[in-house]
Amino acid sequence: MTKRAINFSAGPAILPLSVLEEARRDLVDYQGTGMSVMEMSHRSPAYDEIHLGAVATLRRLLQAEDEHDILFLQGGASLQFSMVPMNLMFQARRADYVDTGAWSAKAIAEAGKVGEVRIAGSSREESYTRIPRQNELDLDPSADYIHITTNNTIYGTEWDYIPETGSVPLVADVSSDIMSKPIDMTRFGLIYAGAQKNLGPAGVSLVVIRKDVQDRAPKTIGSMLRYRTHAEKGSLYNTPACWAIYIVGLVARWVEGQGGLDSMQRANEEKAGFIYDILDQEAFYRGTARRESRSLMNIPFRLPTEELERRFVAEASAEGMTNLKGHRSVGGIRASIYNAMPRSGVETLVAFMQEFERKHG
Amino acid sequence: MTKRAINFSAGPAILPLSVLEEARRDLVDYQGTGMSVMEMSHRSPAYDEIHLGAVATLRRLLQAEDEHDILFLQGGASLQFSMVPMNLMFQARRADYVDTGAWSAKAIAEAGKVGEVRIAGSSREESYTRIPRQNELDLDPSADYIHITTNNTIYGTEWDYIPETGSVPLVADVSSDIMSKPIDMTRFGLIYAGAQKNLGPAGVSLVVIRKDVQDRAPKTIGSMLRYRTHAEKGSLYNTPACWAIYIVGLVARWVEGQGGLDSMQRANEEKAGFIYDILDQEAFYRGTARRESRSLMNIPFRLPTEELERRFVAEASAEGMTNLKGHRSVGGIRASIYNAMPRSGVETLVAFMQEFERKHG
Repeated sequence: MTKRAINFSAGPAILPLSVLEEARRDLVDYQGTGMSVMEMSHRSPAYDEIHLGAVATLRRLLQAEDEHDILFLQGGASLQFSMVPMNLMFQARRADYVDTGAWSAKAIAEAGKVGEVRIAGSSREESYTRIPRQNELDLDPSADYIHITTNNTIYGTEWDYIPETGSVPLVADVSSDIMSKPIDMTRFGLIYAGAQKNLGPAGVSLVVIRKDVQDRAPKTIGSMLRYRTHAEKGSLYNTPACWAIYIVGLVARWVEGQGGLDSMQRANEEKAGFIYDILDQEAFYRGTARRESRSLMNIPFRLPTEELERRFVAEASAEGMTNLKGHRSVGGIRASIYNAMPRSGVETLVAFMQEFERKHG
Repeated sequence: MTKRAINFSAGPAILPLSVLEEARRDLVDYQGTGMSVMEMSHRSPAYDEIHLGAVATLRRLLQAEDEHDILFLQGGASLQFSMVPMNLMFQARRADYVDTGAWSAKAIAEAGKVGEVRIAGSSREESYTRIPRQNELDLDPSADYIHITTNNTIYGTEWDYIPETGSVPLVADVSSDIMSKPIDMTRFGLIYAGAQKNLGPAGVSLVVIRKDVQDRAPKTIGSMLRYRTHAEKGSLYNTPACWAIYIVGLVARWVEGQGGLDSMQRANEEKAGFIYDILDQEAFYRGTARRESRSLMNIPFRLPTEELERRFVAEASAEGMTNLKGHRSVGGIRASIYNAMPRSGVETLVAFMQEFERKHG
């Protein structure tokens, strides 16, 4: 039997084993075509079925209606930091951004090259340990859009509500919690996500964009940088990241097989709950995010000393639990438990945490 | 045994079987790490080795010295159509482009959004059936750069010389002939290629760029759109297309194992020669590109009637030879025979061509 790491990486991250096994089975000869998905013309019927199938499954899962287009782009969330303002910041020439961490800050920096950015809310002064509440947001009703980062991998915080933005389109970087729970797409003008957490491998990004939001972009920007270009061609304007889209399609089908986003949410709440129960004892382990803002996907915590944290990471690694070291800006430990992390993986971690505390507490 | 198509697709295209088999073997558990390459943190030692290994192998194959950086980007050649002018068109604010086909024309259209484009040569009036000679080029010595498309997949033409451009940086879209033969990198300021012909799967693009050429870009463009950003971070500014880069590394090692680019050239000349020998009889089959400009990679040809062309494609397909239909703008047949097309595949095609001519000629 294949050895399987219990992989707590924040991204690229663990994928469902059954997806990997199916991809392996079909890698050289995809379903009798005599070729790999990596060798298929992106204009062939076989690839078309893969491509349209992935779009259709995502549309069902996200309950996205016709007013939204589902796009597969490249360049990750980082390119979206530029594409969003290049396409949308063209009426008021200013946008509102809520700063909830390092990734928000990067989005803000890129938008600032295109137009005026207002900080409509921030938890920077509190080391990004929480999400600002609606009544703390200072929203400009004439902004071109409002941008939030729904889950913050580094700080382990996640928006527990969708902000009310009136008629201003809400734009969200959903890279690290997309598909972890149901999402009300009618509230969003545009969401975007790098695939490498809950969707599939790195190298493709998902954009779901309302049709009226696409109309704002000037034709003077590069064709590849305009959402409209890709929407008009069903993400086949140029050769897409076929293999990555294929895997995203398999992952989406796997999520459906698990019962869809409601089931994912229940499973994710249960898994995160096992770890938060330990942190809530506030004894040996200490969570860094505030309770009302904690993430279901990324759980950072500290131990009494940095020396114990180093031992924790080393001993966990020796038992097959990898990538538990926290981000350098927060320190400590971080357990990323995306959809594909099995409950048994979290149980193994929790048992290890209890044993480690017993020995060193 | 796995059925294997003889895949003449212009791209995404055939990959070496041994590469696919190695990728399949390691797909679920990469060399004892307990995880797939698709699940690895891009900051992990295991991925680092893959990433740096791919860069190093390409550097050896292309004989690129330190003055060039080797980058893995996303968005294909199409995004490069915009990135090249956004980064380079900032002194004279004009550039020379040689128009040798549909892909050149797309590059020209995107550059025209950034600055002034001069057409320094064109074979458009001759239906792109040949490459303009050096003495036909009208080059501007003060241009910011000169852009060529070294191989034109649709028309089956390929530059058989590197144009002399003096001190003006030469920029080339080498998407469809990179690694098919040795290249003198000292003559190029920047080359770029979508991977999906001779390098690997779609979803990653290779850029080889001279350091001084990177310096031209203004800091006002998006970070992801600046070559400098990626060069400074070794293509790890954000999460790269890890899986696609992994496959590119395997393909590059395969090319080395075949004896490098000199060997590839000999093999490609031999393979193309088999087909051109038939076209040169100028009887039943008729090549569309002019002899001095014909491509080693893509060979378009016509049959006496469109009805015979349809039968040719259908009967070839029934014998396992796929994607032989020519591009709609040229019609007829097109055989794309990239590095990974085995000699036996071309021999099968040639035998089929002879038999088809015998029956219908």
